[in-house]
Amino acid sequence: MIETPYLLFLGDAPDQLAAKVAQGIRDWRPDNCVAQLRMEGCKADVRLPEMDLAAAKAAGAKTLVIGVANRGGIISAAWKKVLVQALEEGFDLASGLHNLLRDEEDLAAVARATGRTLHDVRVPSVKYPIANGEPRSGKRCLAVGTDCSVGKMYTSLAMDLEMKKRGLKSSFRATGQTGILVTGNGVPLDAVVADFMAGSVEWLTPDNDEDHWDHIEGQGSLFHVSYSGVTMALVHGGQPDALVLSHEPTRAHMRGLPGYALPSLEALRDTALPLARVANPKAQVTGVSVNTSALGEDEALSLLESIEKRMGLPTVDPFRQGAARLVDALDAI
Amino acid sequence: MIETPYLLFLGDAPDQLAAKVAQGIRDWRPDNCVAQLRMEGCKADVRLPEMDLAAAKAAGAKTLVIGVANRGGIISAAWKKVLVQALEEGFDLASGLHNLLRDEEDLAAVARATGRTLHDVRVPSVKYPIANGEPRSGKRCLAVGTDCSVGKMYTSLAMDLEMKKRGLKSSFRATGQTGILVTGNGVPLDAVVADFMAGSVEWLTPDNDEDHWDHIEGQGSLFHVSYSGVTMALVHGGQPDALVLSHEPTRAHMRGLPGYALPSLEALRDTALPLARVANPKAQVTGVSVNTSALGEDEALSLLESIEKRMGLPTVDPFRQGAARLVDALDAI
Repeated sequence: MIETPYLLFLGDAPDQLAAKVAQGIRDWRPDNCVAQLRMEGCKADVRLPEMDLAAAKAAGAKTLVIGVANRGGIISAAWKKVLVQALEEGFDLASGLHNLLRDEEDLAAVARATGRTLHDVRVPSVKYPIANGEPRSGKRCLAVGTDCSVGKMYTSLAMDLEMKKRGLKSSFRATGQTGILVTGNGVPLDAVVADFMAGSVEWLTPDNDEDHWDHIEGQGSLFHVSYSGVTMALVHGGQPDALVLSHEPTRAHMRGLPGYALPSLEALRDTALPLARVANPKAQVTGVSVNTSALGEDEALSLLESIEKRMGLPTVDPFRQGAARLVDALDAI
Repeated sequence: MIETPYLLFLGDAPDQLAAKVAQGIRDWRPDNCVAQLRMEGCKADVRLPEMDLAAAKAAGAKTLVIGVANRGGIISAAWKKVLVQALEEGFDLASGLHNLLRDEEDLAAVARATGRTLHDVRVPSVKYPIANGEPRSGKRCLAVGTDCSVGKMYTSLAMDLEMKKRGLKSSFRATGQTGILVTGNGVPLDAVVADFMAGSVEWLTPDNDEDHWDHIEGQGSLFHVSYSGVTMALVHGGQPDALVLSHEPTRAHMRGLPGYALPSLEALRDTALPLARVANPKAQVTGVSVNTSALGEDEALSLLESIEKRMGLPTVDPFRQGAARLVDALDAI
């Protein structure tokens, strides 16, 4: 568990896109964000108060989160100076970078000396159990995609936010680096050892109130041959009551796999639902989430309408339209 | 790669079952076995010449393989004495034990000092790639089970042996501890990090002659919620041309999951084949392998006949009948 609230470190981000992790935290958990810290030359801005370490500390920030991608996989000397100082000021550090904070000798030594914690969210910090498949109380919703990176995390975060707005019991359950930094905890599923994948998902989504919904962040796709095993562990470990089909309509082929066409939404439904019912016989497909960011408004709305008609399921782009209709559909379960 | 031939260490095995790893190596790779080494009180016997370390060394053995399960997860002082002496005599050590040879300080120190290798086959020793899904030359056959531990490894080893007897090009590709010790190499798939599972299977079954068959050892089951993600990585990473359905007919529920019934062979076929065709559109189900060890001869033969009729596929128990008909069915591909 990463201590909140956060000071978001934007470093010397060359553009806004480089700070997309910070932007995600800012968008989805504004209450967790005290301020942003930008170095000289930083071209990103997530519209939080600007504070230095001392001011952020005084304002209550507990953890400095690296909300920016580093260039060439190297933590630069300029960054180091800020990070070391942050530890000295009493901040924990959290990072989703490929190169780990703990592998930097100076950071590790200063963290030891100051008693602070380095959170490398790409590395599992828990000894997960092997899945036991036992039914759990409470409800679970999983977004499954026709491909990787089609908007599954966004869909789950939007549904969680909509339920919270309605005063319903809801949790977002992160299974990837960005999701973990957004919400402060989770399972870095792609880094879990094979035998414990499904068990880690069970661990992440334990027994809960009968009217509580877990919105489980999806990973990969059952049709993406590089990562389908990870998706399978989510379908069986997550025991979803509800599946939301997620799709990006303009993709020419599966992400990173030029020889592989995307499956239809029908094929995704017909594959995912029987598999989900192995772990939860009551599983249903409750909606479709389409990422229409590459389309104009008219084209997008017309596509959503035609998919809704074809599939007989509420179909929305949660970014354009919000997730209200996807949440409404959960009431039926 | 573990250096062959082996000296099989049976230790102080309390019964024959405790030495089943040694028995597997003896059964499937007799040419790799120089001798067995039994300590006082050993109740197992795999019917190899008895040799001590010096005699086995003189007879050409390169690696001492621990072919016996240890009690309580502890490598006893009595074993240690033999293992240390083996390193001193110039043997490498190989083990599939849960507790690792490398974690034993004395063994690690003696191995360093003598320049010998400790092979802990439960731990991946390779940095596997992420799967790229590109079609590979050569043919591949994967056994998929209605459940875990239904005879998938046995089926693949029997098919490999039958093809070799016929002078055909064939490799057994191990994905579990026993299989790796039997054949001297492989991927300990259940210990691979999630993102690299399918890639490790691609790595294990690379481009080959067009008339060469890889017989890939299956793991878990698409219907076993604890391990289905591992199975999925085999189905997509392995790109099988042929699937053999494996089944144990007397099981009351999925192994370790009292609440889960076994799927029918039809359900397994209808689930596995479309998934396999994502990675290899030419994939076919070519046969059924049934472990009838719990049945009498008449009952077994009658069951095999009825399944064959029902499924329209060659159906055998390779232990009772050999794998000839399963291999014949590959000719059609």
